[in-house]
Amino acid sequence: MLEMFCDPQAVAVIGASRRPGKLGYSVLENVIQHGYKGAIYPINPKADEILGYQCYPSVQAVPGRIDLALILIPSQYTAATLVECGEKGIKGAIIMSAGFREAGHEGWKQERELVAIAHRYGMRLVGPNCLGIIDTVASLNASFAVGMPARGSIAFMSQSGALCTALLDMALSEQVGFSRFVSLGNKADADEITFMKAWKGDPHTRVIAAYLEGIEEGKEFTRIATEVSREKTIIAIKSGSTNAGARAVSSHTGTLSGSEAAYHAAFRQSGVLRARSIQDLFDYSIAFARQPLLLDDRIAIITNAGGPGIMAADACERAGLQLASLEHDSVDALGKGLPAAVSILNPIDLLGDASADRYGLALSTVLDDPNIGGVIVIVTPQAMTEIDNTAKLIGECSKASGKPVFGCFMGSGTVASGIEVLNSYQVPNYPVPERAVAAMAAMMRHRRWRELPPIELNSFDVDRGRVREILDGVRGEGRLAVGEAEAREVMEAYGIPTPATYLARDAEEAVRFAEEIGFPVAVKVASPDILHKTDVGGVSLNLASPEAVREAFDLMIYRTGRYMAGADIWGCLVQEMVVGGKEVKACMNLDPHFGPVMMFGLGGIYGDALRDIACRLPPLDSRTAGEMVAEIQGYHLLRGLRGGKRSDLEALVDVLLRLSQLVSDFPEIVEFDLNPLVVFEEGQGVIGIDMRLILE
Amino acid sequence: MLEMFCDPQAVAVIGASRRPGKLGYSVLENVIQHGYKGAIYPINPKADEILGYQCYPSVQAVPGRIDLALILIPSQYTAATLVECGEKGIKGAIIMSAGFREAGHEGWKQERELVAIAHRYGMRLVGPNCLGIIDTVASLNASFAVGMPARGSIAFMSQSGALCTALLDMALSEQVGFSRFVSLGNKADADEITFMKAWKGDPHTRVIAAYLEGIEEGKEFTRIATEVSREKTIIAIKSGSTNAGARAVSSHTGTLSGSEAAYHAAFRQSGVLRARSIQDLFDYSIAFARQPLLLDDRIAIITNAGGPGIMAADACERAGLQLASLEHDSVDALGKGLPAAVSILNPIDLLGDASADRYGLALSTVLDDPNIGGVIVIVTPQAMTEIDNTAKLIGECSKASGKPVFGCFMGSGTVASGIEVLNSYQVPNYPVPERAVAAMAAMMRHRRWRELPPIELNSFDVDRGRVREILDGVRGEGRLAVGEAEAREVMEAYGIPTPATYLARDAEEAVRFAEEIGFPVAVKVASPDILHKTDVGGVSLNLASPEAVREAFDLMIYRTGRYMAGADIWGCLVQEMVVGGKEVKACMNLDPHFGPVMMFGLGGIYGDALRDIACRLPPLDSRTAGEMVAEIQGYHLLRGLRGGKRSDLEALVDVLLRLSQLVSDFPEIVEFDLNPLVVFEEGQGVIGIDMRLILE
Repeated sequence: MLEMFCDPQAVAVIGASRRPGKLGYSVLENVIQHGYKGAIYPINPKADEILGYQCYPSVQAVPGRIDLALILIPSQYTAATLVECGEKGIKGAIIMSAGFREAGHEGWKQERELVAIAHRYGMRLVGPNCLGIIDTVASLNASFAVGMPARGSIAFMSQSGALCTALLDMALSEQVGFSRFVSLGNKADADEITFMKAWKGDPHTRVIAAYLEGIEEGKEFTRIATEVSREKTIIAIKSGSTNAGARAVSSHTGTLSGSEAAYHAAFRQSGVLRARSIQDLFDYSIAFARQPLLLDDRIAIITNAGGPGIMAADACERAGLQLASLEHDSVDALGKGLPAAVSILNPIDLLGDASADRYGLALSTVLDDPNIGGVIVIVTPQAMTEIDNTAKLIGECSKASGKPVFGCFMGSGTVASGIEVLNSYQVPNYPVPERAVAAMAAMMRHRRWRELPPIELNSFDVDRGRVREILDGVRGEGRLAVGEAEAREVMEAYGIPTPATYLARDAEEAVRFAEEIGFPVAVKVASPDILHKTDVGGVSLNLASPEAVREAFDLMIYRTGRYMAGADIWGCLVQEMVVGGKEVKACMNLDPHFGPVMMFGLGGIYGDALRDIACRLPPLDSRTAGEMVAEIQGYHLLRGLRGGKRSDLEALVDVLLRLSQLVSDFPEIVEFDLNPLVVFEEGQGVIGIDMRLILE
Repeated sequence: MLEMFCDPQAVAVIGASRRPGKLGYSVLENVIQHGYKGAIYPINPKADEILGYQCYPSVQAVPGRIDLALILIPSQYTAATLVECGEKGIKGAIIMSAGFREAGHEGWKQERELVAIAHRYGMRLVGPNCLGIIDTVASLNASFAVGMPARGSIAFMSQSGALCTALLDMALSEQVGFSRFVSLGNKADADEITFMKAWKGDPHTRVIAAYLEGIEEGKEFTRIATEVSREKTIIAIKSGSTNAGARAVSSHTGTLSGSEAAYHAAFRQSGVLRARSIQDLFDYSIAFARQPLLLDDRIAIITNAGGPGIMAADACERAGLQLASLEHDSVDALGKGLPAAVSILNPIDLLGDASADRYGLALSTVLDDPNIGGVIVIVTPQAMTEIDNTAKLIGECSKASGKPVFGCFMGSGTVASGIEVLNSYQVPNYPVPERAVAAMAAMMRHRRWRELPPIELNSFDVDRGRVREILDGVRGEGRLAVGEAEAREVMEAYGIPTPATYLARDAEEAVRFAEEIGFPVAVKVASPDILHKTDVGGVSLNLASPEAVREAFDLMIYRTGRYMAGADIWGCLVQEMVVGGKEVKACMNLDPHFGPVMMFGLGGIYGDALRDIACRLPPLDSRTAGEMVAEIQGYHLLRGLRGGKRSDLEALVDVLLRLSQLVSDFPEIVEFDLNPLVVFEEGQGVIGIDMRLILE
């Protein structure tokens, strides 16, 4: 739980200052004035006392134990000071000083030194180059932020300190509370993974919200986040996800931001909700922090204004939420209790003169309705609207219910008091219906993730030894690219069917093989020296007769020999022509932080044109592989459209799983591209036509 | 200009009440207290005087002229009162009373009566069932809204009265000003088109913002909006754009909301910017109302915090805005004037301790840079941040520049005073970078639209008479579906190539035709009675020899005759088999409000699976048709991907134009589906294989 940061019994402020306006003054003042109960030791060799606390020249001079050091001195002195902290037995240090990795190579070296010192003494570091930590549970504000946020159940961490200040300011006025609030700075030691782990069992935290620019240990992040997401809701902004953004990240902190595909897959697989802006992060966080999870995607909308109700309905449909019909009993109850002109269809329009009671009746009725999983209550300030009483009734209904209730009090000054009442009842309010719906949809996505069973890997009986031999052979020859015939053997060894193929030394042998396979066949030159066969006339397709095969063979040997004088030509491959089926592809790339990223999409020119790709991080289980197949737009095509036959989706899933196993078994494979992979009708399986494989 | 509504010299409040809390009191109070200079006549037979104004028993009893009547009496009395208004010579009436179309059939009849009365007397009506009108230019608040918005250059109209109240409340606290503010209500007479026309030349209005649930006269709306968009920026929410939303619209106001495709096309073609929420509507409106248009899509971002700068960069790239490099001179100037650690790359990160001066230097430099079209200035509240002075310098720079400058002061209480300063300089502020970027991108889209030349229709030399004959013939026979052979003739008459086709009476004739066309051919049964040929074995493709044609002919006549005993079988069509090319489709549907909607997309199963369709309202010109072709995802395929040949895009545009002309020439065509339309390589043209045509 990182007690040294979240529950220290004694804190030293190294670089405490007597002068208001200085960071060393602000931090000490923050530590003192927000109710922290532990011992506080300002460290400043030139002062006797600051803000009523006795000063010490160094941590060594402090008589008692110290758990946490806040370090605010110029970067060139931090290493020596950190050694003193280590000698003193201090277990945690927050280094707020800047001038490290973000300032260039010299700073990077100094930062490495800090980490080495910390390891030596068994210390944990936060920062450097950070704003500090605020812990509302310990009432400790160990930061130079202005103000102390309210207690709440959101634990927040940010790679941008400035964002922390803006966010705290917003949180103060929007009454958003936090349990822990961490500025990660350069993440020299403690990083997002450290805090995710620490907060996993934290009883004061329901939501972990994060602003991240780059994740170094992508695989570990994914593993830990997958565990933590079963206990808490993790909501993260990952910035730098476009080219322009990634350039900005790199000039900002010198970190490489990794591929968007990898982040997308990692977040999705580990249940991390992605927020696109600070606004989304706030909107989603307060929903999860304050309300129970949405257990059923059928929503009711209650409103005193038709227009916003319609906008909410539009937003629900776009987000995949349903506007359910109410049960007969509910319709009856509403019919009896509400004026005749009220629309009991969903959205339930209580009309412009709706009183608080009318809202109360409608909300309690729909919350009791088994067809309804959650409710959004829209209130526009009209002449007869009882803002505060309506808010109070919404709060009471919400308190009594296990279903999420969101407010959408639209307007500003007139509804402000109502929003305060909602806040006091832990009902989140959103200023427009679309934002309430987006938060509800985030709940839907998170619940669906939680409902998934943990992944279950199954292992196929494959010929791993054969692939070991092939890859070793390729590397032995100093090659990185695996040849066509070798790649086909790899596929066969992992149980992925390939077209029947034989190596013919001469034209007559080619004809014999063709007759064995059955016409039509393809003939392709076989040479380790020729990579792009098509370019040199080394591929002939659809050969339908012995004559055609014979001619193709001779022509090919002649042409390719002329094209590449010294080439080692083994002969020609005679290959089964695959007829029918649909072309898809399965590929893998290596991300520097997340390792292999697997992709699935339509093959051929359509696949290339439409950029319709599903990505996941291996290892895959059958559920995850099935998601990949079903996620692409082109799935409509594979599923069988307008009387078209359903493709063999099970065989596709099987291939993806086998490829995932291949990737796990042979980490030296850094890239592959199985394209086209032809899938036939249901029960007819697949054939992998061509595969490129690249080794490390 | 609808002076009776926006500049009346005398106003009668019919239904004025003495009792505070009553609408009749609130409206009169609103008319009186916001500075209206004209005459005010409360009408109430039971009162002598209200709020210091003499009361009259009826409008007839008023001695002077009246320009505008505000009618607040129960619906059953409105008709008689409206007659009195007509007799009095009143030219405008705002009917706030409810209980009309929205209340059922009886109300609908009463509403029709009001319109008839208005026509009889040459009166214009706003409403019924509306909140009224606020005109800040005339200082007239003729509504029962609470409060009067500031003067500004946004003219707003809304089909939802409740939304008006919420919006006014937001506007009051966010200091958003309006020129005119109209609650449209049921739109019995004056509607969005009426006000768009009225505001076209309004010197007080720069932006027309609208909330709409349905547009009755879609074609006229599109025509007028296209004109008005050249003068003003129109920003509109169209709600009810999903199935759930459309059901909600229908239960709310009884209007049908029309097809989303039609609205999408209409808004896009007429330059109307679509807003997805009230938040977007506000965000975009204040951008256009306060700042000059973005003339160059290259943006600079200035920030004192790395994180938000990165988020802004991400948002720019997603929105299609560019982060440009600065000119050499600018880099020099910034290098000299700013600390060495400042990043002069774009985003320009002025660092956490950035003073107002640093912002001023950076902003004035980039505004002078010819590489930069607009600037977003991000300010997070850090220890050294000079909020108000920074805002002032931003305001001054913006005032001196012809380029749009948006603020993004992040936070709440701490930055509030800065946002007020920005407002006083007409610099819009957005709380998160993504919203500032979205508003900038809206400017980009609108400018691009304005740069388009007006559409130029060209007319092809077609055989209109022949199509007239065919369609009349079809209708003469009582059919609505045009047969295959007829449809092919229609295509030929309008210059769209079709496969060579001949009607053969017997098998020998079929063989002769096949030899003339060249093998392979297709044979299809020709009968006006058989619509689904394939289902009855009436289609044979890829016949490669005379024997095959002969057999197919005989078998087909035998089979179809057996399938449909009394069918009139003319023989078989012998048709050229089209080889190669790519399949696309062009279709048209009729929207109840917007008329024909033309669509273009990939053909075949890919087109069906991928829902990748471009929609436009005819008539098309070559620019618009070109946009349709280039807009679909599948365009990458047509353009020639990875060495694939470019398709004949010019021929596709030509076909779309000819189809547009067909639609204009024959309004009785309510639907067509030209699918597949095969497009060959560049210069090789197209062939329309199959077309379905449905008449009214």
